[in-house]
Amino acid sequence: MESESNYKEGEPEATMWSQKAWALLSTVRSQSPLIQCITNFVSMDLMANTLLSAGASPAMLHTLEELPEFTPQVHALCVNVGTLSAGWLPAMKLAAELAHKSGKPWVLDPVAAGASSFRLKACLELVELKPTVIRGNGSEIIALAKASVEPTKGVDSSHESTDAVESAKSLAQASGAIVAVSGAVDIVTDGKKVVGAHNGVAMMTKITATGCSVTALIAAFVSVDQSHVLEATASALSVFGIAGEMGMKMANGPASLRMHLIDSLYGIDEACVLSHAKITSLS
Amino acid sequence: MESESNYKEGEPEATMWSQKAWALLSTVRSQSPLIQCITNFVSMDLMANTLLSAGASPAMLHTLEELPEFTPQVHALCVNVGTLSAGWLPAMKLAAELAHKSGKPWVLDPVAAGASSFRLKACLELVELKPTVIRGNGSEIIALAKASVEPTKGVDSSHESTDAVESAKSLAQASGAIVAVSGAVDIVTDGKKVVGAHNGVAMMTKITATGCSVTALIAAFVSVDQSHVLEATASALSVFGIAGEMGMKMANGPASLRMHLIDSLYGIDEACVLSHAKITSLS
Amino acid sequence: MESESNYKEGEPEATMWSQKAWALLSTVRSQSPLIQCITNFVSMDLMANTLLSAGASPAMLHTLEELPEFTPQVHALCVNVGTLSAGWLPAMKLAAELAHKSGKPWVLDPVAAGASSFRLKACLELVELKPTVIRGNGSEIIALAKASVEPTKGVDSSHESTDAVESAKSLAQASGAIVAVSGAVDIVTDGKKVVGAHNGVAMMTKITATGCSVTALIAAFVSVDQSHVLEATASALSVFGIAGEMGMKMANGPASLRMHLIDSLYGIDEACVLSHAKITSLS
Repeated sequence: MESESNYKEGEPEATMWSQKAWALLSTVRSQSPLIQCITNFVSMDLMANTLLSAGASPAMLHTLEELPEFTPQVHALCVNVGTLSAGWLPAMKLAAELAHKSGKPWVLDPVAAGASSFRLKACLELVELKPTVIRGNGSEIIALAKASVEPTKGVDSSHESTDAVESAKSLAQASGAIVAVSGAVDIVTDGKKVVGAHNGVAMMTKITATGCSVTALIAAFVSVDQSHVLEATASALSVFGIAGEMGMKMANGPASLRMHLIDSLYGIDEACVLSHAKITSLS
Repeated sequence: MESESNYKEGEPEATMWSQKAWALLSTVRSQSPLIQCITNFVSMDLMANTLLSAGASPAMLHTLEELPEFTPQVHALCVNVGTLSAGWLPAMKLAAELAHKSGKPWVLDPVAAGASSFRLKACLELVELKPTVIRGNGSEIIALAKASVEPTKGVDSSHESTDAVESAKSLAQASGAIVAVSGAVDIVTDGKKVVGAHNGVAMMTKITATGCSVTALIAAFVSVDQSHVLEATASALSVFGIAGEMGMKMANGPASLRMHLIDSLYGIDEACVLSHAKITSLS
Repeated sequence: MESESNYKEGEPEATMWSQKAWALLSTVRSQSPLIQCITNFVSMDLMANTLLSAGASPAMLHTLEELPEFTPQVHALCVNVGTLSAGWLPAMKLAAELAHKSGKPWVLDPVAAGASSFRLKACLELVELKPTVIRGNGSEIIALAKASVEPTKGVDSSHESTDAVESAKSLAQASGAIVAVSGAVDIVTDGKKVVGAHNGVAMMTKITATGCSVTALIAAFVSVDQSHVLEATASALSVFGIAGEMGMKMANGPASLRMHLIDSLYGIDEACVLSHAKITSLS
């Protein structure tokens, strides 16, 4: 990090961020943006329910033949490579192109980017298509940053990134996307500015597809404020995390947390967002 | 509507409908019909669990190579085009043909029928294969009715249907299917007679795949009484709606409603169906 | 059965089995083995959540292009033919080969093996690739055993196996796999020795994908003790069953049982496993 965090609880910046997060959630609820998801088979159910509970309208539609008519009409696109296959990749790429051409934001979730050279190559091709936001975990962002920034080393690049934050900044600079890294603290950067979203609970990592689902929520938030992509991304991460914190109070394990998280996302109100959102400038 | 509703609460007709709904649910529970589902990736989990909780036996099987041996043995088929692709369409069509030839009922869910010309064409080809029931929301039924009844205008047909009821009647007459339209009141028609099922709660629309799942439940109900398809369709819609009403009493949001709805569908008893079912003649 | 059960509650053998089950669960939690699943669309969500709640790490990855790099790095593979298609079969076979060559255990779930000749043939081809464990219900194991042991009779074999235990033993002998048959009592055999796991509740059969999920759990257990495959298989069946018993105390129906089962699997402790595990030698 280039400078110390200037965040102190209760100060004006914190209040501004919380108000922004609430304003965006309210707008999603009132506008109900249509979010197209081309995603993996594991996450479809939770992702659709996450979008619905936040007030957005999900459309799980991935067929090549339909994209030229459909994608230009949506408010944002979410592409997730979780259960990637050669058959689905052309649709992911075409949808990304159509979104970009139509001026619609699109968000990339490079699941397990480093798991194979096929997958890494696919992710890099998608990064070339100008995602508005890229959200992954630390390993995924590091794998993608290394390959994007130093393409000749590819997946076998031997040097270690000092940490995911630097990788995220490099990837943001190389791609032009806002890059978000999920973790104990979620990090969001445009390549220079770094923001942290400090909400969420550890048990959320024991529920499959929570990462995929927050990526879709980012797409919904960005779709209603395209001129503040970094803020919208941080807000979506924070709101999802708050829903997890609220859910955790009622949960006995990962499955009940999953249920209470979605219920909480549906029911969360202004007072709760304003008092719980913790978004800070980290540089 | 051609005539005023003749329904008054507590009158003989209402009692007859409630008894019919209970009789059909009881028969599904005792016969455990095998229901083949060729459906979208989002709904598979909830659809299978809906069928299981109602006492039916789900079979999610979509492979072309298996259909000639398998489909003639099932008790009903449910085809849902939610995550339609060119690769799945031939199996949907073959299964529909096999069901029709074998005298087995099959139910079509034309998800997002108007979303693209590819999808609308696919839905129209499926309608040609003589579905026993078509269930959709208002937009889907209107899109399909316009294209079926006035094929030259296709998806770009400029005139508006006055309402979904008229579209449903037109589609039923053109296709020979019983047509059901989900909404605040679910409508079922054979093209002349119109019946309303008045159960359910608004929050069910905030759970993905509830529409898909009730279509599968219709297939189960119709499979045990093929000579009363309209009654079976209305009964399935009502029973699923009652389960939603029961679930809503315990729910804190969409995810807990989903859980309680399925639990309620499993546990619902005769007294509950008889006291809660609200099915009425609307014309 | 060749001899009477020698199990009596509280005796040394029972204690040994319970301790083994707990030791394996603890090892899964501490080592967090990476389990690759090539499975059906219905089960992906519950299977991934089952693995996560048990402490393992799921990887739903099925693409042919990725397997040569990925599969040799996992700790075990689970192949499930539930929504089998011609497009997925080559990946299932290649992954099985790669696992076998790499000395990694792999587990086969022959869902609905007898549903079609296409499916039975696919299952037989997979059995040829040396699964470490095969787990199915009685009908599936009987169908597979008949076809494996007497290949000329195929799916139409007219004689009835006296019971699934004999089929399981035959299949184990013919294939070299440990064979598990789910039922009121789960049976595990190496072809000679037969062990019963007596945990679980009937309502688990009303939740889709519980069978698929316990197969994945078997893969996780076997991955941490490859030299005791039969014991690991019986332990996984017992632990999953105990989680069902614990969940049943809080459940109001199949959907709440599903939630409480996963929560219980996450929270289950040594005292609970030691007091509830019921694994016995049946021959």
